[in-house]
Amino acid sequence: MRLALINRDGGLDFLEERLREALPGIPLLTWPEDGAMDAEVAICWDPLPGTLRDMRNLRLIHSIGAGVDKLLADPTLPDLPVCRIRDHDLARAMGEYCLWATIWFQRQFDRIVLNARSKIWERFVQRPAAETPVCVLGLGAIGRHVAEQLRDAGYPVHGWSRTARDIPGITCHTGQDGMHAALADALVVICLLPLTPETHGILNSRLFAQLPEGAGLVLCSRGEHLARDDLLEAIRSGHMRGAVLDVFDREPLSTEDPLWEEPGVLITPHMSALTKPRRIAEQIADNVRRLREGRQLCNLIDRSRGY
Amino acid sequence: MRLALINRDGGLDFLEERLREALPGIPLLTWPEDGAMDAEVAICWDPLPGTLRDMRNLRLIHSIGAGVDKLLADPTLPDLPVCRIRDHDLARAMGEYCLWATIWFQRQFDRIVLNARSKIWERFVQRPAAETPVCVLGLGAIGRHVAEQLRDAGYPVHGWSRTARDIPGITCHTGQDGMHAALADALVVICLLPLTPETHGILNSRLFAQLPEGAGLVLCSRGEHLARDDLLEAIRSGHMRGAVLDVFDREPLSTEDPLWEEPGVLITPHMSALTKPRRIAEQIADNVRRLREGRQLCNLIDRSRGY
Repeated sequence: MRLALINRDGGLDFLEERLREALPGIPLLTWPEDGAMDAEVAICWDPLPGTLRDMRNLRLIHSIGAGVDKLLADPTLPDLPVCRIRDHDLARAMGEYCLWATIWFQRQFDRIVLNARSKIWERFVQRPAAETPVCVLGLGAIGRHVAEQLRDAGYPVHGWSRTARDIPGITCHTGQDGMHAALADALVVICLLPLTPETHGILNSRLFAQLPEGAGLVLCSRGEHLARDDLLEAIRSGHMRGAVLDVFDREPLSTEDPLWEEPGVLITPHMSALTKPRRIAEQIADNVRRLREGRQLCNLIDRSRGY
Repeated sequence: MRLALINRDGGLDFLEERLREALPGIPLLTWPEDGAMDAEVAICWDPLPGTLRDMRNLRLIHSIGAGVDKLLADPTLPDLPVCRIRDHDLARAMGEYCLWATIWFQRQFDRIVLNARSKIWERFVQRPAAETPVCVLGLGAIGRHVAEQLRDAGYPVHGWSRTARDIPGITCHTGQDGMHAALADALVVICLLPLTPETHGILNSRLFAQLPEGAGLVLCSRGEHLARDDLLEAIRSGHMRGAVLDVFDREPLSTEDPLWEEPGVLITPHMSALTKPRRIAEQIADNVRRLREGRQLCNLIDRSRGY
């Protein structure tokens, strides 16, 4: 068994040592070096389209993250098992970020931070958590954890997912009508959807129009979920309060980008959740052993759903 | 029975209607109008020293807030029962503020917000909540709630209070040695102490020196707890990371104040917790009825402790 790290721009070296520790004696190559294309396991983030198709011995494609959208975007991706990382620390970190961003809007820290730059002391009417409905789009492992944490913090939580869910204390919705109901009174919307052809650009003016006036957006899934011009328009028209954005279609966000200067928008540098290299290496190593021993793989994705 | 609203600068009108609703038919006057000095109950925030001494019929002094430091600062305060407000919504709002401010330091939102002003995309090593010890100074009703909320969010929590406490999952300290132990590894210190002669100026360079390098301060008790020059020095020397300050000895904070421009400092306009007028009026009305019927008063303070 041989493994290969495959990414279009390299940059996966941070995993090398951890993988060698976790799988002693197993050859680990880095694309495009000699022999990498002969590996049985491809450990990938964003490989050049066509690369995996040309790996004749390939038996397993493993993402180094929770998302697999970059892999599935390759129409030539061979029909092999695709696994992803599933990390509770990731959910926990995302939970902190989303709770912080929810309080940012609820307690009007967005205005307070802006005011402080101009030395303005201005008090606002306080809205309790119990009167601040939050909508969480996507109720996978991470979305569910975030929704539960917000529920426990006292917010009324609506959740929306493609697959119907039943989570105590959370009003779960599904389908197109469900989306409308989930958004109808949400003062904070948090997007934690997987990126698929159906969810690409889902945060657009049609969705924003279903929100009550003054809602804030929290985006920590993928930049491609967002129709950014629609967001800027919704904020500038006063319909939306603002946004806390952690992901962008191109990262780092260009200094030319008008989002930086939009007063209601806070840009964070894709830091809402980072998985530790050790955790990634352990999960990949576990699946490599399972493959070798013919046991069932963990965190296998469903190609038909796209996640 | 007559009631009087007594504050040196007026400004208690927001309570008037609520009090009339809660105590129909009971005369309610506002100092310095005629007859106010004959009231049996003084409802106060910050009366001019000597005012209460001159009220011959006075039987009860009621604060409109959780703190009574402004009342007890009057050396001529008559020896009568002093009651305060105790409001779980206050604890809940303070809990949100303190959790937000803790995440602000832990997840380095302080740096991220500064960076965003200069369009800088910079990622930082992430420190999990479990490796971010927090120290809560003051474990009264509010401090205890804040400490428990931080514990539930995954932070190791040290608490310090004058009276020894025992709170599950929280390392409780008391006394001078206890203070040292409570601060020794705290990366966030939250002050929720009552303001008394012993705690006046307690946040000074002696206390800051007991913190590890890089700690952040969260102040939402009283401005007088803080030796502000010591804080500025600790931040400018690099020993402390910064501060989130909600209370000041003079409010609103003057636009001349250097705290506004200190990069590591976030000024918030005394909004960490506001009690609803209805809640204040209900608690005062309850104590007025208790006084009239000779029953035990609620939320009576201990003059010898100062809170």
